Amino acid sequence: ICPIGTFSFPSFNNKTTFNGSFYYCRICRNCQGILERLNAGEVVIGDGGFVFALEKRGYVKAGPWTPEAAAEYPEAVRQLHREFLRAGANVMQTFTFYASDDKLENRGNKLSFTGAQINEAACDLARQVANEGDALVAGGVCQTPSYLSCKSEADVKAIFKKQLDVFVKKNVDFLIAEYFEHVEEAVWAVEVLKETGKPVAACLCIGPEGDMHGVSPGECAVRLVKAGAQIVGVNCHFDPMTCVKAVKLMKEGVEKAGLKAHYMVQPLAYHTPDCNCQGFIDLPEFPFGLEPRILTRWDMHKYAREAYNVGIRFIGGCCGFEPYHIRAVAEELAAERGIMPAGSEKHGMWGAGLEMHTKPWVRARARRDYWENLKPASGRPLCPSLATPDSWGVTKGHADLMQQKEATSKDQLKQLFDRSKSH
Amino acid sequence: ICPIGTFSFPSFNNKTTFNGSFYYCRICRNCQGILERLNAGEVVIGDGGFVFALEKRGYVKAGPWTPEAAAEYPEAVRQLHREFLRAGANVMQTFTFYASDDKLENRGNKLSFTGAQINEAACDLARQVANEGDALVAGGVCQTPSYLSCKSEADVKAIFKKQLDVFVKKNVDFLIAEYFEHVEEAVWAVEVLKETGKPVAACLCIGPEGDMHGVSPGECAVRLVKAGAQIVGVNCHFDPMTCVKAVKLMKEGVEKAGLKAHYMVQPLAYHTPDCNCQGFIDLPEFPFGLEPRILTRWDMHKYAREAYNVGIRFIGGCCGFEPYHIRAVAEELAAERGIMPAGSEKHGMWGAGLEMHTKPWVRARARRDYWENLKPASGRPLCPSLATPDSWGVTKGHADLMQQKEATSKDQLKQLFDRSKSH
Amino acid sequence: ICPIGTFSFPSFNNKTTFNGSFYYCRICRNCQGILERLNAGEVVIGDGGFVFALEKRGYVKAGPWTPEAAAEYPEAVRQLHREFLRAGANVMQTFTFYASDDKLENRGNKLSFTGAQINEAACDLARQVANEGDALVAGGVCQTPSYLSCKSEADVKAIFKKQLDVFVKKNVDFLIAEYFEHVEEAVWAVEVLKETGKPVAACLCIGPEGDMHGVSPGECAVRLVKAGAQIVGVNCHFDPMTCVKAVKLMKEGVEKAGLKAHYMVQPLAYHTPDCNCQGFIDLPEFPFGLEPRILTRWDMHKYAREAYNVGIRFIGGCCGFEPYHIRAVAEELAAERGIMPAGSEKHGMWGAGLEMHTKPWVRARARRDYWENLKPASGRPLCPSLATPDSWGVTKGHADLMQQKEATSKDQLKQLFDRSKSH
Amino acid sequence: ICPIGTFSFPSFNNKTTFNGSFYYCRICRNCQGILERLNAGEVVIGDGGFVFALEKRGYVKAGPWTPEAAAEYPEAVRQLHREFLRAGANVMQTFTFYASDDKLENRGNKLSFTGAQINEAACDLARQVANEGDALVAGGVCQTPSYLSCKSEADVKAIFKKQLDVFVKKNVDFLIAEYFEHVEEAVWAVEVLKETGKPVAACLCIGPEGDMHGVSPGECAVRLVKAGAQIVGVNCHFDPMTCVKAVKLMKEGVEKAGLKAHYMVQPLAYHTPDCNCQGFIDLPEFPFGLEPRILTRWDMHKYAREAYNVGIRFIGGCCGFEPYHIRAVAEELAAERGIMPAGSEKHGMWGAGLEMHTKPWVRARARRDYWENLKPASGRPLCPSLATPDSWGVTKGHADLMQQKEATSKDQLKQLFDRSKSH
Repeated sequence: ICPIGTFSFPSFNNKTTFNGSFYYCRICRNCQGILERLNAGEVVIGDGGFVFALEKRGYVKAGPWTPEAAAEYPEAVRQLHREFLRAGANVMQTFTFYASDDKLENRGNKLSFTGAQINEAACDLARQVANEGDALVAGGVCQTPSYLSCKSEADVKAIFKKQLDVFVKKNVDFLIAEYFEHVEEAVWAVEVLKETGKPVAACLCIGPEGDMHGVSPGECAVRLVKAGAQIVGVNCHFDPMTCVKAVKLMKEGVEKAGLKAHYMVQPLAYHTPDCNCQGFIDLPEFPFGLEPRILTRWDMHKYAREAYNVGIRFIGGCCGFEPYHIRAVAEELAAERGIMPAGSEKHGMWGAGLEMHTKPWVRARARRDYWENLKPASGRPLCPSLATPDSWGVTKGHADLMQQKEATSKDQLKQLFDRSKSH
Repeated sequence: ICPIGTFSFPSFNNKTTFNGSFYYCRICRNCQGILERLNAGEVVIGDGGFVFALEKRGYVKAGPWTPEAAAEYPEAVRQLHREFLRAGANVMQTFTFYASDDKLENRGNKLSFTGAQINEAACDLARQVANEGDALVAGGVCQTPSYLSCKSEADVKAIFKKQLDVFVKKNVDFLIAEYFEHVEEAVWAVEVLKETGKPVAACLCIGPEGDMHGVSPGECAVRLVKAGAQIVGVNCHFDPMTCVKAVKLMKEGVEKAGLKAHYMVQPLAYHTPDCNCQGFIDLPEFPFGLEPRILTRWDMHKYAREAYNVGIRFIGGCCGFEPYHIRAVAEELAAERGIMPAGSEKHGMWGAGLEMHTKPWVRARARRDYWENLKPASGRPLCPSLATPDSWGVTKGHADLMQQKEATSKDQLKQLFDRSKSH
Repeated sequence: ICPIGTFSFPSFNNKTTFNGSFYYCRICRNCQGILERLNAGEVVIGDGGFVFALEKRGYVKAGPWTPEAAAEYPEAVRQLHREFLRAGANVMQTFTFYASDDKLENRGNKLSFTGAQINEAACDLARQVANEGDALVAGGVCQTPSYLSCKSEADVKAIFKKQLDVFVKKNVDFLIAEYFEHVEEAVWAVEVLKETGKPVAACLCIGPEGDMHGVSPGECAVRLVKAGAQIVGVNCHFDPMTCVKAVKLMKEGVEKAGLKAHYMVQPLAYHTPDCNCQGFIDLPEFPFGLEPRILTRWDMHKYAREAYNVGIRFIGGCCGFEPYHIRAVAEELAAERGIMPAGSEKHGMWGAGLEMHTKPWVRARARRDYWENLKPASGRPLCPSLATPDSWGVTKGHADLMQQKEATSKDQLKQLFDRSKSH
Repeated sequence: ICPIGTFSFPSFNNKTTFNGSFYYCRICRNCQGILERLNAGEVVIGDGGFVFALEKRGYVKAGPWTPEAAAEYPEAVRQLHREFLRAGANVMQTFTFYASDDKLENRGNKLSFTGAQINEAACDLARQVANEGDALVAGGVCQTPSYLSCKSEADVKAIFKKQLDVFVKKNVDFLIAEYFEHVEEAVWAVEVLKETGKPVAACLCIGPEGDMHGVSPGECAVRLVKAGAQIVGVNCHFDPMTCVKAVKLMKEGVEKAGLKAHYMVQPLAYHTPDCNCQGFIDLPEFPFGLEPRILTRWDMHKYAREAYNVGIRFIGGCCGFEPYHIRAVAEELAAERGIMPAGSEKHGMWGAGLEMHTKPWVRARARRDYWENLKPASGRPLCPSLATPDSWGVTKGHADLMQQKEATSKDQLKQLFDRSKSH
């Protein structure tokens, strides 16, 4: 049974029924899977990034960025899933980022859970919350230290296969290979994921300049589609407008090659106009000084509209996205989707809730043009507006990127500090 | 039994034991109440503001800012309590901000819970999580629309009394009267709270210029202490350094008057160097464009140190504070407190976790002097660093501030928009 | 004969005649001296600073800042006088800044002219250009290395006396003691200048915080008036709005003391909101990186209006002022003065000349509200908006400030560099 | 006779003699003309822009930007020539910008001098000052309203011919066609100038995006060289680094086409990272709010080095350049040129003169690394760092660009204001 009517924003549910003349909602998981939805031209809203959000809540360690919290603090992960669902997300990604065994034990990271335990717990949490609404569950894999350490194609594929076994066992709805800096590794991942028969999405963490080996976004997308990905796009590393631009280049490449695909984008919630090809990792503010760059909800409205205009239909977020950012995406596209997010109960379009504020000058801000035109001040007159990225230019194969089970030694750190100062 | 040994940071527990030669931890709730702790010279860490944090998570509506989520979405409120506890907070404030009956039904805000239901649910959640650690429960009241509408002292006191009845029934550990713009109303609140015999803290939301009627911080503090508050300070409305400055003036006033008190501060997590006496409410970015002003964790280290140096011992946060901000306060004062927050398991002092980062140039940032000296860029070159506050200068007694049960009408809004443009 | 009618802006001359019903212009030198003008309530416009303007033109050396160009490159100095006259200045200050013998030979500065030669040449140039229009000639003295080196009152006064002998011989119209950081030395200067019987103006280079020994602006002004200055004020070191604020405090002090005086202000043409009590000398940008702080002509309109509103009637400029800055002051006060500056022939009020621009969108900027509301961008996204002053806090009597005839040695420089880095 | 030894910086003259083993200076006008110098690989330093510098001094009207001051206020123009000569310029450009008859009488500009009078006076002034040193005189023509008004090639060429007749009569050393937005018109100018037999330089006011019709810098340069220009480059409209980038593209185009040329660059002294293809005219700050964008002398060092590295040997400036900016260029290239500019007598490399400053912390700034790394603050916290250009996109042939002898009417202005607001 389709859960139409379960949403708390009745006027929109009615509207959907009237406008569309459908007995079914057409947007819930029971009605359609990811490809059915995209084929029907619907907008699918993704969730936000878990590692950054949970780092701020105290459950993820910046540095290793591993997702052991899925097994260790399940109630915290579950709550974040729920908040994104409520914000309008149609997809619950399993919290399995960097959950490959080689990454879990990198550089002295000591965990009391196996990779399999973490991956299984993450699947259960995503499914549980997805069932509370209409969301799909997507199992996710990402780039591996093994690839950066120049391991063989077979070795790297074996890493992906191990995570995949859990996803198959837990019967996720579709798969996402994401956060790849090198298209070569992403193609390997897609080839492994394809074997399950489930729909496969593939995202690189690149900008308009292309991957770390200089392969253009258009060429990257063509390779991913040829490898079998039905949905291609980018995630992380750059701000929304930059990511949309990169996906646009992907789309042009795919169309020029006479191929077909769906497109997705899951950018940062940080302004990064000053990044080089490596993205926000190179910014001096990464990862503990990014606050002044956080997008407002109004920036998100512009992002959602631009992504939609470019032809992207799977629109979500990555690092920095909080539930209210996803809600803003869902509100901007409420007319196109025929539904308001549940979380808008506590918001209202363009800040309508401010009509109830005590102070009259704040009530006067309850209007679209106020927020659309605001140029927010940083309150930081001693800080610049742009930064100079680190630009070490180190990539696959460099000694400093090799997987290393032991902790970074004091000597290794000292060498890094010294090189850092000379940049 | 004192829960020493329950914390996950063994080296610090050991240190405490060795340094202090105590069988008891001296800092847990079982050992001591709020006044015993402060009298012993200990640092008490507060939690962060719930309305802003839960607005971003989708459970509070900006505008009314009312706390019905305590009854409506208890799992979301409980989770936030847990995160602050894990971050090092010693106090769980009941989520009862603006939970007075006159505020709950202001300007068309329609809720399906009574004030009593909300206040009771909030007490239960705070107590439940406090018991998971060593925290105290503080019942909180704040300023009322009745006062702004020029109701009588008896009427306003009756409002406080109603909330207080719940706090007494639920047996909170102490009471906080906070977020008062006028010292007169705060004194009334203290007089009511004192009747319970529980310890009373009182915070105004003012800066160094004093309350909305121009009463200086020093004089405000004297009046609050004379009314019976054992702890005085400021919360909300200004950034940490400004609030600390205001509390310092309070302390000087109290000492000059030959009185005694403890001091607390719970500021914004937003930089507000450009505010007038009304605080961040007057900033054009309030409440939906404040992102570029969010303090980093390193700003919080400076705040915690400065507050400590000034002699403030109850140090927490208000709007904008996320759990990692409180964790930063707890980490800065770890040596003074003899304990690291549980959440530091996922952090490490001064970003030590970065030693495990994949990229070498990020590992090179795993050091104090890097983050201490960083001047973070905003990524917003079209935005200024400071803003011009609205400065309508409307205060108690003005027609626009009167309590009004009905929603703001379109005509009322239009008048506000027009006045807004002429400012 | 009064030179009415010699100005090139006929409409304004006519207006003067009609409004005032005078046969005489009332504003030219032939009609009145400095005190007559000020007593009559007229606005007197000063010139701009010569050392900074001529440094950019290649005739003054930043560091010693000495005015040997008066004797060495007279045509360059004469041209700058002419430009300020044309911009509307009523006063030609002799280019005798730092022309005391002790300063001329400080720290290895080797000149081929004696102090007397420089002072005489400067008087001749000022008089020559003043005679081309209606301007008064003011002989100026400023603070001495001798005072900073703790020489006696008699020694310091002898320094002033030597410059004064030239001014008397050349018969300047009045005297200005300016750029004093310590009111004590300024009082000594006034006492010497008073002996000539000529009108005496006295300016400190201080802000609202007072002089280097912490004497408040009000108290400073009272001492100067009591010493015999008929005009008091501030020059240099701070931006226009800050200087006006300081003079306002002087005025309040003088009036509170039951005394009478006229007021003058000759500020920097640089924005200095971030300065400490030492002024722009402490800014890291001094003196070779101040460009982004230069005031626009529109900033000057606001300055001139504010100075006028505060009751200041002698309004000019110091370092950073170029002729167009003085022209802007004269244009803002054209109605009050009854005359447009000659230089407005090449300008027009509020950029009216843009009506003749080729590009239509630039013609669209030929209006007051455009320029009045412009928030000019810096084009420097890597730079902050405010700086942290050096704040060494070194003042009179410190070894590093002593007069020293020899050049600064390499050892001395190295010590300074090292101290600089530790700040 | 070669004037070696006439320079006031003896150590450098000596050095030249020793290093080069030449009896002749090789850099003076008597030794060589422009092409001889460039062919010998020497660096030729241009002067700065006269219209902006003289607008600030009160002798040029912003809007028409015409050079009648050459005839009207010759002493002011002569003085500026002298300052640039002293700063190190090897070329005195005649102050004949916009001195074509059609431009002189555009849009209500009423002058009391004919075009011929202005051009002749300008030649005399340039020659007089050039003879005071070793500089060459260059006669300059620039784009015409006739071209923008779609007049025929013959008509436009006749305009250039008229100015040229004066240059031939006055026997200038070489010719510069500069400030052309359309390469087509520039080619016409070069074709006319070539007929004199004198060396011809040609500069467009374009950036890396090419001319107003989208012709790339490389293609533009090829056309100019084929038309007969021996020196090609860009001037005005963009900041130094952008202009150098554009000339680099020109050079690549010329070399790719198998042609040969010399290269020149004379950029703005304003930072313009936010410009579109139309350059600084489109910036909201043009022309009366550009102050915060002015380059420091240290920015000029970087510019001179970059231009030199790219292979440009004729390096000068345009609007915004003051004499000290040219001096900085000459100082940066002092080793390559074998001579310091005369004006460095009042400066010293990297601010060496500061060793004589009174305040010790300013003496501590007398070093290269201090100034090279300074990030100057704007002192304007309410202003952004970048602006949004106007981008009306109006070009040749548009009604609003047509030559019009009458003044812009009030109706025309009102229409422009309205269009301006809607952008």
